[in-house]
Amino acid sequence: MAQEEVQNGGPEKVAEVSFTALKPQLMVEAPKAADAVQFYKTAFGAVEAGRTVYPKRKAEQEQPHVLSAQLELAGSTILVSDIADNSTPRVKTEGTGCVLCLETEDVEAAIAKAVSAGGVAEGEVTEGDGACCGGRVGKVKDPYGYVWLICSPAKKCGDAEA
Amino acid sequence: MAQEEVQNGGPEKVAEVSFTALKPQLMVEAPKAADAVQFYKTAFGAVEAGRTVYPKRKAEQEQPHVLSAQLELAGSTILVSDIADNSTPRVKTEGTGCVLCLETEDVEAAIAKAVSAGGVAEGEVTEGDGACCGGRVGKVKDPYGYVWLICSPAKKCGDAEA
Repeated sequence: MAQEEVQNGGPEKVAEVSFTALKPQLMVEAPKAADAVQFYKTAFGAVEAGRTVYPKRKAEQEQPHVLSAQLELAGSTILVSDIADNSTPRVKTEGTGCVLCLETEDVEAAIAKAVSAGGVAEGEVTEGDGACCGGRVGKVKDPYGYVWLICSPAKKCGDAEA
Repeated sequence: MAQEEVQNGGPEKVAEVSFTALKPQLMVEAPKAADAVQFYKTAFGAVEAGRTVYPKRKAEQEQPHVLSAQLELAGSTILVSDIADNSTPRVKTEGTGCVLCLETEDVEAAIAKAVSAGGVAEGEVTEGDGACCGGRVGKVKDPYGYVWLICSPAKKCGDAEA
């Protein structure tokens, strides 16, 4: 029903947006992401291609907060991230859960297209340092409950920013 | 801790298992999978590569039950499936949610390896006609709450079995 409302395309066609990668991002209750990464390596033979972390911010924290660990598995990439109540609010979902990262050069156009199709944008597009290994990121919830992170292509994966 | 218990590998190394594909499978409350597929086409430009359905089983059902629709998106494949209380019990998860299909030629070995790493096998390996587009399928829940479907490679995608 929303297609008729699209302003930036023809009456029957919305703007073309191309995506360069799809990466499931597994949210894990902090600080278990590092353990989860080890499990996926041992259980499935996943290979870690990079990890972005925050340093310990509290003396009692034994492990750094994993913003995003990138794992190569079966020709695909998955991301594993610590999620905590008091951190990374822009990628926080309702509890832990899998979100789907879609990379594109045009974050705003992609979000606009998804919204015109019936998705709901959540929050603002921000400069993220957690989701999808950095870059700009916005969030769209689809009508079926799944959260899609629309983000600019990962360019800094593997560079620890901590 | 479980690695020492593995019988089919060396004391420090478990059997090699290779995976040929990773496909996030989005479970959607039946009968909304067809709508979800249309949404992903419109919102993200996903291309449908195949769909396996059950025929209508009740006169009041307006749409066939989608066992698995295969969508190509950003160089990856996602699966979209109707999930209902009274059907496809072998892939039923707690409510709707994303599961991760891992394809391999050796389902049993892959499950054994995941279990030795700390995963929990759920149910028996069965001949599935829903998950991952047919073939043999087993289920492993990892210590972080994610469900992995370990299945033989999809060979029948696009062939409607109804």
